[in-house]
Amino acid sequence: MSNRIAHAGLAAKRRTAQEAAALIQDGMAVGMSGFTGSGYPKAVPLALAERMTAAHAAGESFRVKVWTGASTGPELDGALAQADGVEFRLPYNSDPIARERINGGHMQYFDMHLSQVAPMAWQGFLGDLDIAVIEVTGIAADGELIPSASVGNNKTWIDRAKGVILEVNRWQNPALEGMHDIYYGTALPPHRVPIPLVRADQRIGQPTFRCDPGKVIAVVETDAPDRNAPFKAPDGKARAIAGHLLEFLGHEVRKGRLPASLLPLQSGVGNIANAVLTGLIDAPFGDMVAFTEVIQDGMLDLLDAGKLRMASATSLSLSPEAAARLNADMGRYRDRIILRPQEISNHPELVRRLGCIAMNGLIEADIYGNVNSTHLMGSRIQNGIGGSGDFARNAFLSIFMTPSTAKGGAISAIVPHCSHVDHIDQDVQVIVTEQGLADLRGLAPRQRAELIMEKCAHPDFRPMLKDYFRRAMAGSYGLQSPMLPGEALAWHQRFIDTGTMRG
Amino acid sequence: MSNRIAHAGLAAKRRTAQEAAALIQDGMAVGMSGFTGSGYPKAVPLALAERMTAAHAAGESFRVKVWTGASTGPELDGALAQADGVEFRLPYNSDPIARERINGGHMQYFDMHLSQVAPMAWQGFLGDLDIAVIEVTGIAADGELIPSASVGNNKTWIDRAKGVILEVNRWQNPALEGMHDIYYGTALPPHRVPIPLVRADQRIGQPTFRCDPGKVIAVVETDAPDRNAPFKAPDGKARAIAGHLLEFLGHEVRKGRLPASLLPLQSGVGNIANAVLTGLIDAPFGDMVAFTEVIQDGMLDLLDAGKLRMASATSLSLSPEAAARLNADMGRYRDRIILRPQEISNHPELVRRLGCIAMNGLIEADIYGNVNSTHLMGSRIQNGIGGSGDFARNAFLSIFMTPSTAKGGAISAIVPHCSHVDHIDQDVQVIVTEQGLADLRGLAPRQRAELIMEKCAHPDFRPMLKDYFRRAMAGSYGLQSPMLPGEALAWHQRFIDTGTMRG
Repeated sequence: MSNRIAHAGLAAKRRTAQEAAALIQDGMAVGMSGFTGSGYPKAVPLALAERMTAAHAAGESFRVKVWTGASTGPELDGALAQADGVEFRLPYNSDPIARERINGGHMQYFDMHLSQVAPMAWQGFLGDLDIAVIEVTGIAADGELIPSASVGNNKTWIDRAKGVILEVNRWQNPALEGMHDIYYGTALPPHRVPIPLVRADQRIGQPTFRCDPGKVIAVVETDAPDRNAPFKAPDGKARAIAGHLLEFLGHEVRKGRLPASLLPLQSGVGNIANAVLTGLIDAPFGDMVAFTEVIQDGMLDLLDAGKLRMASATSLSLSPEAAARLNADMGRYRDRIILRPQEISNHPELVRRLGCIAMNGLIEADIYGNVNSTHLMGSRIQNGIGGSGDFARNAFLSIFMTPSTAKGGAISAIVPHCSHVDHIDQDVQVIVTEQGLADLRGLAPRQRAELIMEKCAHPDFRPMLKDYFRRAMAGSYGLQSPMLPGEALAWHQRFIDTGTMRG
Repeated sequence: MSNRIAHAGLAAKRRTAQEAAALIQDGMAVGMSGFTGSGYPKAVPLALAERMTAAHAAGESFRVKVWTGASTGPELDGALAQADGVEFRLPYNSDPIARERINGGHMQYFDMHLSQVAPMAWQGFLGDLDIAVIEVTGIAADGELIPSASVGNNKTWIDRAKGVILEVNRWQNPALEGMHDIYYGTALPPHRVPIPLVRADQRIGQPTFRCDPGKVIAVVETDAPDRNAPFKAPDGKARAIAGHLLEFLGHEVRKGRLPASLLPLQSGVGNIANAVLTGLIDAPFGDMVAFTEVIQDGMLDLLDAGKLRMASATSLSLSPEAAARLNADMGRYRDRIILRPQEISNHPELVRRLGCIAMNGLIEADIYGNVNSTHLMGSRIQNGIGGSGDFARNAFLSIFMTPSTAKGGAISAIVPHCSHVDHIDQDVQVIVTEQGLADLRGLAPRQRAELIMEKCAHPDFRPMLKDYFRRAMAGSYGLQSPMLPGEALAWHQRFIDTGTMRG
């Protein structure tokens, strides 16, 4: 018997993944663990996908609603989407097979603010949750659960589900125990109280999940790695963006608008985010903290360099190499990393109180600084809004970053009018491309437009933008945010028709 | 000497409005009191406008930056705009003359989330504030200031301005003293702490503004009424909208998702909002509270009917008749109304904690439930986003209401694609028109579209919407939020070209 299951009653509920998956029925809502490719269940969803495929081959219907923390791994979203087994998905997805099914109209996808998933579940707005499938690192003797490499919505799924299936993954480092901070102080209004957190490095909860053993309907043992994307070294554009941003942050410190240790950093994932974090290693800021969604490679580097004092997040989202580095020295990192439920890591109350510096990517921004983070050409979803809305609206400084072009120069990231809006101009204070940085604070729309076109647009598209803006100034219905509705989305239609936004 | 000025040092600074206005110079940033037609300075801005007109006649430049709480009255926004004396305005405007100047491209207007004005001013993002011009009810013997009929950003303007001009308005009821709750616990990060408010009826501050008498550069005595819009009795459409909404709230109580006393109400202003509040008088909910921006006529009626236990806001925005009613019995109302700074009345932390039911108007919603609250045909600003973003994103329930058509049926409030977005679909849970109510909770975009077209659209426009959606389903780049960029804004262009959205 695995020493990962110290509770005898739960040890007696050990089942195969197939036996556990057999407890899930057509039409059920299933709350899964997982936030990025970390801490998601790796065996039961695969077995469930096999059941679904068999049912479909037999002409039977078998699809479920899948709720998670955010994205997961191929054994969950990929396998279930491949089996055409998901009728409804929330709150975030980045799996390519699921994305195809969503954009093909075969799967309903409710793309949510990540901080709002747990409250809305408690408020009864998402319907009933039938079964939770949660990966854990281990089960303590008292039946409490030692979380895995991500926390996400696990607390809420365990509390709300009628039945709980646990996957105990011995691949997860047992020294993860103690890294987590599970806050049990949330409530429904009128009983909500302040979240008692005033510093990013503060613990306000307990290291384990509470779980009524009577609700556990199966325990499955696994030994399978998390699967996060490999690290991609920042390219020249990413380094240029990071350079502009670091220069700006230095300027803000010199002006006295930011302390020399900055304010708690929130950083999206990917190439540009890693370039910024890498750049911070050599920047003149020290004793920094992060209050963010995920710990990516660059955060670990900053911790190693002694520049980042600690990092608070809801998930470890590390390349296989960085995960190995973390695992080799977990005891030391454990005191400098706190993993929290995503309703806490992303809580608007805390983001505003701590005064986060929010740094997120975008798909396109328009000349007024409205930002599209989700929909290509207004209709095709890439991933989802994730936590960007939680952070951007409440941040001390809300920064969005992108290369100025995409698809080999066929797409301009700066457009006359966003084809979809996730972040309204009021929530976007700084836009950075490899071309430059637009500091939009305190500016009205027409002032913002001049700056964004000049600082952020690619020179190939700048004349087209200026031409549009000039004509909009002459022919717009009103001049607060000049616009020509008949032409505002012409660049997107042209891309669809010809494969390029270029005229 | 007026008994409204009990501090001798400040009494000695009494000046005429002309003398006070002479202290304001070309290019200055001036922070004015005022939130709706309440509590704004009524003499100095008029005198300033006269100076500006004279300067312009003499060929001299004279324009200022005007910061307020929200909208104000004609003696402020109207007079200064008429004099072409405003180069930049924040954070909200509803004055028709100022609106014309903004939409004519003659005035820069930074339309802000109302909760963010004070923090951004403290963060240094809005630039320096030269002079504050603040209406007060009186000056206490210790120099502290008794607020007027609105609080707005007055605390911040007084604290941040280099010089303060006070207008002591004897028209304001002296019994206003004690109604206000001015919280002095805000700070810049990393020193922010929880706002210690857990119930709408709680007082966390003091009844007066602190003000260094040494900073006061003039005290002007006035005797002039606030000017809010007269009450307009709800029409049939407004009553129908209210009926759908009250039925829904009753349903939520029966389902156990709302307590019988509901949750703290936030209500926009106007005809529909008043219809909802009037409808609540006869609805089966009692012991209600409001946590909102403004106290309008309907709120007062609810207080009188004993259905509303108390109301928290930042401003009294009452028709002349209701203001007279309040003034005649101020002592009694004072204990059931709390006026707070707008950074507290609209604070995301508090809106989320209290679980407000947010009820706001809109200009247009698209079939996915994105909402445009501000820009007619995408470019011409009507008023501004105001506090709707503070409330909608953080509310327990975010509800938007509108008649299904405008301009005698020429404009559909439900469109294929919003021409401007203020509230993204994630922040819009319920849309109500006189046609019906769409409960969008937990639904993905295509599901939302079916419901909004069916429940909310006017029958005259429903076939056009369904035709667009059907063609978008067939020809969209992706099917998460089906869209035809070349046609998405065609209804707006048609209105501009022909005066109607009808095909």
